[in-house]
Amino acid sequence: MTQTLTLTALPNIPLIQPGDDLAALILKSLAEAGLTLQDDDVLIIAQKIVSKAEGRLVKLSSVTPSARAIELAEQLQKDPRHVEVILRETKEIIRMRPGVIVVEHRLGYVCANAGVDRSNVAPHGDASDDYLLMLPEDADRSCAELRARLQAAANGGVRVGIIINDSHGRAWRSGTVGVAIGVAGLPALLDLRGTPDLFDYPLQITQVGLADELAAAASLLMGQAAEGRPVVHARGVPYPLREGDAQELIRPKEMDLFR
Amino acid sequence: MTQTLTLTALPNIPLIQPGDDLAALILKSLAEAGLTLQDDDVLIIAQKIVSKAEGRLVKLSSVTPSARAIELAEQLQKDPRHVEVILRETKEIIRMRPGVIVVEHRLGYVCANAGVDRSNVAPHGDASDDYLLMLPEDADRSCAELRARLQAAANGGVRVGIIINDSHGRAWRSGTVGVAIGVAGLPALLDLRGTPDLFDYPLQITQVGLADELAAAASLLMGQAAEGRPVVHARGVPYPLREGDAQELIRPKEMDLFR
Repeated sequence: MTQTLTLTALPNIPLIQPGDDLAALILKSLAEAGLTLQDDDVLIIAQKIVSKAEGRLVKLSSVTPSARAIELAEQLQKDPRHVEVILRETKEIIRMRPGVIVVEHRLGYVCANAGVDRSNVAPHGDASDDYLLMLPEDADRSCAELRARLQAAANGGVRVGIIINDSHGRAWRSGTVGVAIGVAGLPALLDLRGTPDLFDYPLQITQVGLADELAAAASLLMGQAAEGRPVVHARGVPYPLREGDAQELIRPKEMDLFR
Repeated sequence: MTQTLTLTALPNIPLIQPGDDLAALILKSLAEAGLTLQDDDVLIIAQKIVSKAEGRLVKLSSVTPSARAIELAEQLQKDPRHVEVILRETKEIIRMRPGVIVVEHRLGYVCANAGVDRSNVAPHGDASDDYLLMLPEDADRSCAELRARLQAAANGGVRVGIIINDSHGRAWRSGTVGVAIGVAGLPALLDLRGTPDLFDYPLQITQVGLADELAAAASLLMGQAAEGRPVVHARGVPYPLREGDAQELIRPKEMDLFR
């Protein structure tokens, strides 16, 4: 049996500004691509545009760094105001060295800089100052809201999945890969425990990071430099959709050998 | 601009036995799927079938565990013969706890059990004993050889990429994802350093694990339990192919904060 997964980077998504209606822009773009949402389709959306639409921007000159941020900034060789915003988004610092801070984000992901990004964020063409972009306040909630809007817009209703992805570095391996930081309407973690393999051994690999694999696939199409392809439509995911969230993908601290 | 990446799990790949000609089986399956290889196509092949074709099987009853394997097996609560084969494939033990051993494989990947797998491996229907399956002796070389065969089979020549993927667990995140353990003919690591973003900031994310993102996407289609879909054809990778290997993806030990 031939099985096909088709990923399409949606066209003509404009540069996103705080307050923009992402669901409306995605529906418009889907129509322009000749795509009608069907049951079991999944949309993967770049964190950057969700954060921007939600106004998760901080003007660098408006930030007053704490004493702790100033101290860490010296070790990190970073702007203390940037470090201050990172700390506000951080539950726990995991590792530090000059130029690199790996933390547990308040939403539970372990990532560099708590996802606080300096590139590519000027809102409304404001070149008078630098801005920082934080992750969505609650990326699972953002996904659930987008899903409700997109499903409601379909005549007769459809059941789709939504992922917000970001690019994360990894232990042991070079290069970033797309991962899911928000999920709605699909199994973020696929539980195959108990599934026998072809020779009736219980499978040794028992849980698959399905939403992360989709996030990685979409990331490949989005590119890094441009904001021009921040939404990817996936059709042909070979597993049934269900309710789900990105918290499924966060390894409990006490089960983690690498913290 | 609409950009599409299409992943197709190839049909009718039989259960692989030691000595099988993978290139021939893949060419036959491509034809059955109505696919003709084109420039810039990438084939992603499950480690399991490459290892089997290369005869990387060990009969459990033939293994004599060393004193060290017996000692570790007690701590790990694993079969000492399994631990013995893991150690033979291991450069360095990174973490251990009951049931789990994370090592640097002799090829450089950090992974559980040095990739030595007990499930799903009986060769020639031999149910008289258990077998262990090791990773390919040199997965990059396996990729290069497959690539040469597949390219030579195309009339007039094509330029394609080959990835061998495996499922790896991760620090911090639950669930396995597909990663590239062998690569030929594509940039395993995509170097975007120096690329300016839309607002002329140098990009903060500078290296992308392209082959890992493709490996993850393919893994999603392969499933875990079956050997029925171990080869995935990808068309539409939006980066130019070049020479490359999976060693690009291995973070140098001295640059790794999590070893």
